Amino acid sequence: MSHAELAEKVLAGEVRSIARAITLVENGSDSAADIMKSVYPKTGNALVIGITGSPGAGKSSLVDKLALYYKEKGEKIGIIAVDPSSPFSGGAILGDRIRMATLGLDKNVFIRSMATRGNLGGLSRATVDAVAILDAAGYDKVIVETVGVGQDEVEIVKTADVSVVVLVPGMGDDIQAIKAGIMEIGDVFVINKADREGVLRTQKELEALLTLAHRPDMWNPPIVKTIATENKGIEDLAAAVAGYHSFSTSEENAGHKRKEAIAKWRLIELLRERLLTDALRKNGTEDRLSELAREIAEKKLDPYSAVEEIIGNQ
Amino acid sequence: MSHAELAEKVLAGEVRSIARAITLVENGSDSAADIMKSVYPKTGNALVIGITGSPGAGKSSLVDKLALYYKEKGEKIGIIAVDPSSPFSGGAILGDRIRMATLGLDKNVFIRSMATRGNLGGLSRATVDAVAILDAAGYDKVIVETVGVGQDEVEIVKTADVSVVVLVPGMGDDIQAIKAGIMEIGDVFVINKADREGVLRTQKELEALLTLAHRPDMWNPPIVKTIATENKGIEDLAAAVAGYHSFSTSEENAGHKRKEAIAKWRLIELLRERLLTDALRKNGTEDRLSELAREIAEKKLDPYSAVEEIIGNQ
Repeated sequence: MSHAELAEKVLAGEVRSIARAITLVENGSDSAADIMKSVYPKTGNALVIGITGSPGAGKSSLVDKLALYYKEKGEKIGIIAVDPSSPFSGGAILGDRIRMATLGLDKNVFIRSMATRGNLGGLSRATVDAVAILDAAGYDKVIVETVGVGQDEVEIVKTADVSVVVLVPGMGDDIQAIKAGIMEIGDVFVINKADREGVLRTQKELEALLTLAHRPDMWNPPIVKTIATENKGIEDLAAAVAGYHSFSTSEENAGHKRKEAIAKWRLIELLRERLLTDALRKNGTEDRLSELAREIAEKKLDPYSAVEEIIGNQ
Repeated sequence: MSHAELAEKVLAGEVRSIARAITLVENGSDSAADIMKSVYPKTGNALVIGITGSPGAGKSSLVDKLALYYKEKGEKIGIIAVDPSSPFSGGAILGDRIRMATLGLDKNVFIRSMATRGNLGGLSRATVDAVAILDAAGYDKVIVETVGVGQDEVEIVKTADVSVVVLVPGMGDDIQAIKAGIMEIGDVFVINKADREGVLRTQKELEALLTLAHRPDMWNPPIVKTIATENKGIEDLAAAVAGYHSFSTSEENAGHKRKEAIAKWRLIELLRERLLTDALRKNGTEDRLSELAREIAEKKLDPYSAVEEIIGNQ
């Protein structure tokens, strides 16, 4: 199948072609280029929701329940679960299968795990491309869920239309750890497992931290309490997400600035990947890299001089 | 002060010069190059210990107690705390001050926080450079502590001589979340807060996971129980760290392969940063980038065509 045919089937919402296109964008920017050029102009209709928070906060259950909520409203939902710390990608992950069973194996819910492959990076770029594919394929909501709270995850979640940060009660340490960087990206905050002790304290701490954050758009992020496993608070979460979305789209300028900032970040990510791929592809560079690594390990050479040699030879 | 003078003072262990050199490597690979070329040949004497684990696991207390333990043995200890999700770097962080007070403000303990600056990345490279500076400056142990468990953190910790993964009891979810990627990097595992309920269960789960992991070096990672806040188990941790270190250095080949792999990763990181910096520095690229970002945000252009334009113009 040519890339043009594949793109056509993706735009028609054909599930197997969507999965195939996502595999292509995972494999590298080269294979992604053709398909993304066809798909990109058709994006912009889905509401993209990014969900992050520390491990153990119950993000997966929350995402599943939110997806079910939208599904019952008759919408199509795509879920991308990003795990930069795992070397495994694709539908083969056991977790995906279990989740598909919970959510119902029908064409209105698409689930995909994405992980880091090799040492050339590109996961952020691949994730954003996968979101664009689902968007263009007609999914109404695309939920991007991350496993950790590292820089990659923060950057990925920042590219969503609405970013949700999930916490659990009684994690004083955790809030401190999550601090500045991630506090600033939350448009909506969730305290999940809200039947646990310490909800009020966590809420107070969170409110205190939020008063310190400076948002250029003057939005005051709501705090929603949920018990995902009992399906409680999911409607409130959906309402908070919709609330921020309508706020951000009414604020013409702010919304546009955000889209531009995302586009710039995306461009830099792609450029970074492309430059490295091109450089490594040049005749003999891969072999030379291994030789240089050996010399560095033996302290015969420092990494900076080695890089100058590689660049000088190109 | 010239870079050569600065490098000389770093090698003499002069604390303010060390701090200044680390600021230079944080500022970018350009300023780093000169200093690192002088410093790199003098590295290789410190034992570099990487410590990672999920937020709330009590890593900071554990690191502080371990540092105190080494200090009481008469050693010099450097600590680099890496937080990719935070935009703040340097000694200005309140946390650093508090920790310095705990550890004693003397010349035998050096603490530095490092965070992500701007959107050009380079944190991993800067961290590894900072470790090399402390190594060359005569610190006996350099501890690299990460806040999260994202891909950046995993990569940074992988560059240590000994990697320690910290867990806490009763985090079943957490272990699942931490799974494959991070399990594979642990040479030593710690169950901290071992006075909490569920220690045995966490230990069993961890043992089960470890039997699934395949280590090329046949090392069987020990599990150490600690209560960092009460200074319990710290000696066991130090013994486990020393145990893996002597194992890995006796295994000639395996140890060397690891050093080569680290050198290659480092080379690629540095190359990636340098290529992007060079590309963006070319006449007009920065301005053009903003224009292209605007066109992408307006869906007049896709990111892939934009990157081809940038590369084509260079």
